[in-house]
Amino acid sequence: MSDSAYDRLEARFRRREVLAEAGGLLHWDMSAMMPAGGAAARAEQLATLDLLGHELVAAPETGDLLEQAEAEAAGLDGWQRANLREMRRDWRHATALEGSLVEALSRAGRRCEMAWRAARPAGDYEAVRPLLAELLSLVRRKAEAKAESLGLSPYEALVDEYEAGLTLDRIDPLFDDLAGFLPDFLGGVLERQAGRPQGELPPGPFPAARQKRLAERLMAAVGFEFDHGRLDTSAHPFCGGVPEDVRITTRYDESDFASAMMGVLHETGHALYERGLPAAWRLQPVGRARGMALHESQSLLMEMQACRSREFAGFLAPLAREELGGSGPLWEPDNLLRLYHRVEPGFIRVEADEVTYPAHVILRYRLERALIADDLSLEELPGAWNEGFRQLFGSVPPDDRLGCLQDIHWYDGGFGYFPTYTVGAVIAAQLFEAARRDRPEIPAAIGQGDFAPLLGWLREKVHGQGSRWSTTELVEQATGRPLDPAVFKAHLKARYLDD
Amino acid sequence: MSDSAYDRLEARFRRREVLAEAGGLLHWDMSAMMPAGGAAARAEQLATLDLLGHELVAAPETGDLLEQAEAEAAGLDGWQRANLREMRRDWRHATALEGSLVEALSRAGRRCEMAWRAARPAGDYEAVRPLLAELLSLVRRKAEAKAESLGLSPYEALVDEYEAGLTLDRIDPLFDDLAGFLPDFLGGVLERQAGRPQGELPPGPFPAARQKRLAERLMAAVGFEFDHGRLDTSAHPFCGGVPEDVRITTRYDESDFASAMMGVLHETGHALYERGLPAAWRLQPVGRARGMALHESQSLLMEMQACRSREFAGFLAPLAREELGGSGPLWEPDNLLRLYHRVEPGFIRVEADEVTYPAHVILRYRLERALIADDLSLEELPGAWNEGFRQLFGSVPPDDRLGCLQDIHWYDGGFGYFPTYTVGAVIAAQLFEAARRDRPEIPAAIGQGDFAPLLGWLREKVHGQGSRWSTTELVEQATGRPLDPAVFKAHLKARYLDD
Repeated sequence: MSDSAYDRLEARFRRREVLAEAGGLLHWDMSAMMPAGGAAARAEQLATLDLLGHELVAAPETGDLLEQAEAEAAGLDGWQRANLREMRRDWRHATALEGSLVEALSRAGRRCEMAWRAARPAGDYEAVRPLLAELLSLVRRKAEAKAESLGLSPYEALVDEYEAGLTLDRIDPLFDDLAGFLPDFLGGVLERQAGRPQGELPPGPFPAARQKRLAERLMAAVGFEFDHGRLDTSAHPFCGGVPEDVRITTRYDESDFASAMMGVLHETGHALYERGLPAAWRLQPVGRARGMALHESQSLLMEMQACRSREFAGFLAPLAREELGGSGPLWEPDNLLRLYHRVEPGFIRVEADEVTYPAHVILRYRLERALIADDLSLEELPGAWNEGFRQLFGSVPPDDRLGCLQDIHWYDGGFGYFPTYTVGAVIAAQLFEAARRDRPEIPAAIGQGDFAPLLGWLREKVHGQGSRWSTTELVEQATGRPLDPAVFKAHLKARYLDD
Repeated sequence: MSDSAYDRLEARFRRREVLAEAGGLLHWDMSAMMPAGGAAARAEQLATLDLLGHELVAAPETGDLLEQAEAEAAGLDGWQRANLREMRRDWRHATALEGSLVEALSRAGRRCEMAWRAARPAGDYEAVRPLLAELLSLVRRKAEAKAESLGLSPYEALVDEYEAGLTLDRIDPLFDDLAGFLPDFLGGVLERQAGRPQGELPPGPFPAARQKRLAERLMAAVGFEFDHGRLDTSAHPFCGGVPEDVRITTRYDESDFASAMMGVLHETGHALYERGLPAAWRLQPVGRARGMALHESQSLLMEMQACRSREFAGFLAPLAREELGGSGPLWEPDNLLRLYHRVEPGFIRVEADEVTYPAHVILRYRLERALIADDLSLEELPGAWNEGFRQLFGSVPPDDRLGCLQDIHWYDGGFGYFPTYTVGAVIAAQLFEAARRDRPEIPAAIGQGDFAPLLGWLREKVHGQGSRWSTTELVEQATGRPLDPAVFKAHLKARYLDD
């Protein structure tokens, strides 16, 4: 009895997923554990795993099996057909590239990332520019090859790696809408904020070990399982690992516990998505997270929607007092909430509030499109950054550390990733609104540190769906209507103007 | 211009080594970082990497290339010829096995190891026996398949994986010699020890964080480079990672700092060997450590020969006082040295002194030979362990935690490994004697915490040779004569009877 073409594809993609998961752990280790001297050996390991995974998908046999399986698709169920569709999508991305380009991209990305780690604190853009130039030139080759194969523009082909189907005709209207709405809105928020009491940080210091204990209690309340994951420290917080072993990281500022707590809750949102992916489809393309916009919606739903709420502040305050030994009015929910609702334009994206955040993304989106289209050179990048920032924020970063060196994305080859942040914020607002409508008990439960109602809804509507639907379909099914920035804008108005 | 067969072999084995290194890091993480819930996914990753590595070596093309390259070997230099010899050795080991057996062994080993982690503290041998039975049956299949292919007995074929050429006609005379010498010698040592002042542990507690600081200072003195490695905590100390990023682990007993310090120095000996392997032959078979007996010689040379010396005690004492806040006569070198030279039969191998250690190994060697030959069943193992222990030590462990459950080796499939420990101890003594003869300044330098003379000798004679020579050849070249247990016995006499 021979396996069907579909079964053989499952075996093939399973091996590819296992290799990708091994690579993911190696990347986590690189960021959270590895001493600098290990970089070259690690880059080799990652490049080899990338190449082997590529070869499995791009092999002629895979194409043959896909054709056979598609011809026999009538015998498959809905999940299987979706899995086959995702396999075809992977195949289209993989076959566009030569193996040598995949390997070269992996190596150049690791090399540039390691150089950036040293160049960023020093604010020394010129030190990393040659490696970035090498990397960008490879990314452009990739974008052009994929554009042809996918029938997209080169920049869209890059975005498509992170979020399937997120084309410019979906991004541009959304960003234009927000770019039209936010400047006036921000003015209104700042004016109102100036006339009200300011949130004030309780006095520190807050030792990292105690912040970590508080963070772990919050994570546990939200639903993180510590026999299925870890919290560690890294320069750039992220979520890695696999669904049964999710690795999140944060960084601690001993003068400000509030920042790390929201960072941890953000990453916990990512972690819960991974943990909730459909177990029956582990190690298959359809069992993966849908895309990075939906992923970001899960972190932002947790951080911005659920945990910067008045209800959560009521849950957080006594825990923070207990773990950090605080007392007095600065530790009351009202003050913490004012801290967490403070709006303030600043140079650093990852420290930005949700009102100014989209402008940070729009800046990067414009610049990376221009870089990929070769309308902007890397020599011009710092100047273009500063000019773009001035137009959006009215000020100029004093150095590149606070400017074009601040984010890892370009320096590890992640061009096309940035738009997913703001699309994710818009999705988050719409999902959270729908969850509260379906389960009105959610806000009060959050006030008790009980995330089960919210998590139950997310497991059913989002996490457990894996990649069965497109993001567009999933949002519409979960919320009853197409994605619409009106919900996000209404959320901002309610929180920052009406509350 | 086409690459030669030899060049193509280098590319092929390079890829295999990179995969093995990726697997090594994943295994380190499993032991030092991974939450229990990640075990199944990790087992999949390791099994897939093991299988891919196996397929690269066992592929028919590899055999064809080896024949071609061997026919053209006259054009190769000495290192290349040694590399080709090691490739052929790997090929013999790999082609003996079906890929399905390699995968099954990897999975069963991880599964049994995880079950053992829970069964050991509970002393519950029966809980892990079914998984051990599955694993042992696969190991026997492997041993028989390799025996045929290598022209060795099944047990020898297993030992050969860890230490090439370590056959029973080399092990047995050595172990018989020691088994004849040690009982009387031990009696003499214990008698003498009873009539002299005993070493006494300074009073604790010693917080793990402070022990770690002291350990890191000692590691740095010995030559460990922290930009090329890490020290972490794990239940079972080991050395992993890659030459540019060596990961060692230890465990801390807050009532006894002395134990962790020697554990760390032992692992540092392993680490320095890895770090000193020939950089020009990275990712080639000839660039690997020669074998586990030689590896163990490097850890024991550092721990037992160099760091349990009078000279090192003089260097250690003031550092320990400083980092641990001690003072008084218990912190003087004389007392520390008495502690470190204490001989005391006990149940646990890893806590044994160097006089009683060989008997622990001989017990395991006898039992695992019988298990592989099917002369002993797993039902009988606990009883056979206790009876064997009684014959060698005159007492019986009170439970299996202190008996046949104590070591990880059988439970992760490492049958055939144990003999390398005692062969390593014998090599260590002979190498250290030769190093002091060649560089008489070594002991005084160690007293100053200056390991450069010793490390320089080891780099030249041992580490930098990789797998160019057999262990037998390397020992003879480094020391001027064949391996001879007389040096080890003379070392024991000098330290425990004459000093």
